[in-house]
This record gives sequence, C-alpha cells and structure tokens, in this order.
Amino acid sequence: MRATVIHAPRDIRVEEVADPTIQQSTDAVVRVLRACICGSDLWPYRGEGNTGPEQRIGHEFLGVVEEAGGDVSGFAPGDLVVAPFAWSDGVCDICHEGLPTSCPQGGIWGRPGSDGGQGEAVRVPFADGTLVKLPADAASDDRLLTALLALSDVLGTGHHAAVGAGVRPGATVAVVGDGAVGLCGVLAAKRLGAERIIALGRHQARTDIARTFGATDIVAERGDAAVAAVRELTRGQGAHSVIEAVGTEQSMLTSVRITRDGGAIGYVGVPHGSATGLDLGHMFARNIALRGGVAPARAYLPELLPDVLDGTIDPSPVFDVSVGLDDIASGYKAMDERIALKVLVKM
Amino acid sequence: MRATVIHAPRDIRVEEVADPTIQQSTDAVVRVLRACICGSDLWPYRGEGNTGPEQRIGHEFLGVVEEAGGDVSGFAPGDLVVAPFAWSDGVCDICHEGLPTSCPQGGIWGRPGSDGGQGEAVRVPFADGTLVKLPADAASDDRLLTALLALSDVLGTGHHAAVGAGVRPGATVAVVGDGAVGLCGVLAAKRLGAERIIALGRHQARTDIARTFGATDIVAERGDAAVAAVRELTRGQGAHSVIEAVGTEQSMLTSVRITRDGGAIGYVGVPHGSATGLDLGHMFARNIALRGGVAPARAYLPELLPDVLDGTIDPSPVFDVSVGLDDIASGYKAMDERIALKVLVKM
Repeated sequence: MRATVIHAPRDIRVEEVADPTIQQSTDAVVRVLRACICGSDLWPYRGEGNTGPEQRIGHEFLGVVEEAGGDVSGFAPGDLVVAPFAWSDGVCDICHEGLPTSCPQGGIWGRPGSDGGQGEAVRVPFADGTLVKLPADAASDDRLLTALLALSDVLGTGHHAAVGAGVRPGATVAVVGDGAVGLCGVLAAKRLGAERIIALGRHQARTDIARTFGATDIVAERGDAAVAAVRELTRGQGAHSVIEAVGTEQSMLTSVRITRDGGAIGYVGVPHGSATGLDLGHMFARNIALRGGVAPARAYLPELLPDVLDGTIDPSPVFDVSVGLDDIASGYKAMDERIALKVLVKM
Repeated sequence: MRATVIHAPRDIRVEEVADPTIQQSTDAVVRVLRACICGSDLWPYRGEGNTGPEQRIGHEFLGVVEEAGGDVSGFAPGDLVVAPFAWSDGVCDICHEGLPTSCPQGGIWGRPGSDGGQGEAVRVPFADGTLVKLPADAASDDRLLTALLALSDVLGTGHHAAVGAGVRPGATVAVVGDGAVGLCGVLAAKRLGAERIIALGRHQARTDIARTFGATDIVAERGDAAVAAVRELTRGQGAHSVIEAVGTEQSMLTSVRITRDGGAIGYVGVPHGSATGLDLGHMFARNIALRGGVAPARAYLPELLPDVLDGTIDPSPVFDVSVGLDDIASGYKAMDERIALKVLVKM
C-alpha cells in the first residue's frame, strides 16, 4: 500500500510500504477513508523533536474495517470506524479510569513499529479497545465524515482542554491559540455551557470560525496587551477557565495572567522548550490550577460522537484545505506556512 | 498591649505596642487566647523574604471579642471566635466563589498596617466576613481550644491540599512533607475517605502522629529512593492524589514523580526559590494536574468546625510545644531547630 513517510525535515514522501496484516488476534486492519495533518506533525516536519529515519507519520484517521483478528468481537469487515490518535487495550485499570493515553499497552500511530494514519491502511492493535463504530450511512455524507474525523484528535483535544479548565455553565472562558485545537476548544466550551468565550487570535479566517463556534469576543493583541484586553473584558478579574492550546512559554505566561483567581488553565498545547512559563508563586497566591495533557480522545468519544452525529456541534470547518494522499506534501507546506488551518487528506 | 515584633532575622521580641481600636465600623477587636507559630513565620526569622523594620508577626489566633464596630452584626463582646489567617469582606464575588484569600479588600495578619496574631489583641477588619463564632464552653476545654486553633490555618491548609489533590473515597494518597501542614493533610485525606495514605517522613515523632492521623504507610526515603518506595507500594502506578506541603523544587519534583497518571498534586507548600520542580513535559504526557495555593481557610471553616467540635478529627497533636507570649522567641528557636513541630502560644 501507499503511505506517508518522513525522511528528514521538510522531506515528506508518499511511498509503497508493506501492507498491514493481522499480527495479534486482537488486531484489525482498517482501510483509511479520511486522514489529516495535525499541528504536531509539523514539529518533525520542521526538524523539532526526534524522528527516526523513514518514519511513518499521521495519527488521525477514519475508515472501514478490512479484516479483524479472531479475538476481535466488536467489529467486522465493512464496519465504518473512527480511531482515536492512540490505541489502548480498553480493559486495564488506567483505561477504566478514563485515561487510555496512559494505557501500558497503548501507543500513538506513526511511532516506530506502527502504521501512521496518513496511509491507505492501518494495523490497529486492540481493536475492541481502540476503535469506535460509526453509522454506515455516514460514509456517504462528505461533510459529516469530515466532522467525524475531528473525533480522532482535534475535537477531543479541545474538549480535554475545556474539561481541564473546568468550564461550567455560565463561565467566562478565554482561549489562547487560534489553531484547530484552540477553535475546537471554543466549540467544546460553548457545548459545556460557557456564557462568554474570549478567543485570542489575529487571523480573520480563524477568528471568523471562532465566532461560528461560539466565541463572543475576539482579542487580537498579544503579550501584555492581550492580558490587558482580557482583563478589561472581565472587569479586571480574568477568565474562570483558560484553554491553552499552543504550548510555548509565552502562551502559558499569558494563560496564567488572564486566569481569574481560583480559576483553572486547561492545557493541551504540547510543551515546547525548557521554560514552562509557569510562575508558581503567582499561581500559588491566586490559586490557579493547571490541568491537562495528552487528550484521552478515546474516552471522550462516547460523549462527543452523538453530538457530532446529530449536528449539535460541527467541527468540520477547521478543515479548510483538502488534498489527496499523493499531494500530502503540499498540505504540510500549506500548514507550515500557515496558509492552511488544518489539512484533510482524502483517500 | 504586648505583641511580637520581628526586628531582624532571629531577632524576635515581645514589646509594648499601641492597643488596637475600632477604626472602621465593620471592625472588631479580639482579645487573643491562643496563637501559634507557623512554618511560614520561620522565613522572615531566617532572613528569607522581605520583612519591614519592626514588623508585627503571626497570623493564627482565636480569642474573645472585646469590642465590635457599629456595623458588625454577627458578633458581640464576649463571643469566643476563631480567625482564619486572612481577613476578607465576605460579600464580594470572590468571597462568594469560596476564595476569601483573594478578596480585594482582604489581607493577612502581620503585614504592615495590621496587627499580628502573636499579640494580646488584634483589630479585625470586616469582622462579619472574617470571624467564626465558637461555642462559649470551648473556652474551658484546653485540648479542644488547641484543636480549634488549627482551624485558623494549618488544618484548613491541609484540607485545601487534599481538596486540590482530588482526594476521594477509596483513593491512594501520598503526602510529601511531615510538618504540621503535611500532617493535617493526612488528617484531611483520611476525613475525605482515602483508603491508603502514604506519608513521606523520617522523624519518628512526626510519623507517629501521621499514623494517628490515618497514614497507612510511612516512607522514610528521600529523592529517587522515595519515588521508588512509593511506586513499589502502589504497583508501580503512583498515588491518585499527592499532597505537596513543603514548597521546594525537590519536593515538587518528588510529587510529580509519585503521582499516578491522571492524578493530581494539591500543593500548599509556599513556593521557595526560582526553580519550580515542574517538569511540564512529564506532567503533560501523564496528565498530572496541579491545584492549590493559599488556602481559603475561612471558606472551609463551616465544613471543618463541626468535625473538630464533635471530635471526628482532632488536629491538636500537631502542637507539641507550648509557650507563653513572653517566651515566644524560644518557640521560634525550637521550630527553627526542628525541636518543635508547631508551637502553641498561650496568653
């Protein structure tokens, strides 16, 4: 089959690789219908972080089960399924506690030894614990299929940030980061009942989506000016809940400073660099909580899926560019240059 | 009246100062019966942090209302009361949200312009918002009076850590720090239903109290060895909830490493130094939350007071040395040298 391989920074190729096969009786093989490029895929693309030679890449996909191992009970060939960005056994203590991303038997697609999501097919370990079935008729609804793909990572991650930030009905929420995750954070905060949602961003196309998703205020400033603007919008008090969807020292600094005393930061921006941006003395004096991390997207699927299916929420607008698998390198380039917000890959 | 004044590091004196008087109609004057020395009082004593010249000190006390301003409705002369370590107006948004320590009109006893708790009397701003009435007959029960004094700070702070750490019935809790706050963290965790409580400490007298308070396991090791010991006690998984009651880089590093994936650190050790001990990448990968800060002791009083009054919990053993006001300097010396755990001051 053909799959995306990263050879070196900015060297993304689509190549012929070995077809995935059932290796364990709990595996399934899924033929991919939709995949996409994540902001975190840009780090190896940009040469940040360690990537092995000729490493597979991509961790978001949905598709059709092609083959299921003998011990897979929940899926059969032909089932339409979405995969969260990490597989997990679904039966251990940690999975039962709702944190499948910490499953001792789990892993993330595209790491050495596993298939990446940006390819024609994927071997899925622990299919029963990992995959979630979708209604068969969704396959013929292009818009819905795109929306459902967001459940693989970006919507669950935005939701994780909103949960971590303690978003409650009536809350004032600020969202730091206008990428696809931040926008899904807006959508998730709205869904959880936030009354006021302040989106920090300066790109009109993105802030337009933020408004569609429920943002009530846009702050285009950065740094000190952004802090002042959010404080002015909140009678000097800051936001009860802050979604941090960037992962830099500066974004965390801003997040701490715009959080209301007693409030919480839900952080899902993967931490970059050695400086955390956390002023612990400041957080201590004001009782600001920090909660988040790798989103347990699989655990959120049963809650979020019905709302996507019935149209209560529609994350599909975060995908603003679509490419075929052969053109995926152009998708990386467009995201790297911030021309594209998030690139959909149609097989 | 006489009150404790700190002139310079290790220069603690009891001196004649101006008698407190009603300055605002919402003030009360409280004649102190019991005060005590806090671990945080040792910082100015040791020359850490900024202290003004001839600054009053002490922030924990209970006593009898001597005079109440014209707008004080909840208290009258003769009422036995306990004061939390910070005053607050009790009526603003922030107080209503349960965070009186962030009240814009609040403050902490012993800061410039206010009386300290380690004196014969204290002017209490916003008496209605700040003070909590105690049953009059408690005054004749020496043990109970000592236990009630813990509500001023140390018990509420231990409880805040347990709440921040998300202690739930059945949880495994680890407590980093064997000072009075850490021990009260053990007591609070037990009260909240923790099934297993691992106390980290190496001082027999303190770990004996920890066992009395509900600790099921004692870990005497430090650093890497402590982490290994806690992991061994928890099937390699760490504790659901970790109470951090020290405030150093090392204690936070240990706390992060002994927290179970998806767990939380409740931190009440006032951060010391510039290094936080927070490995954000590690916390992100394992979804470890951090929640805590200055304890809103006033907000917890209605919940904790009945349990102290009826003996459900008895924090009085954390006071292991008692001095008169004139001998308070010897109390500081004993705590500084770790001869005393926490020093009670009887007027």
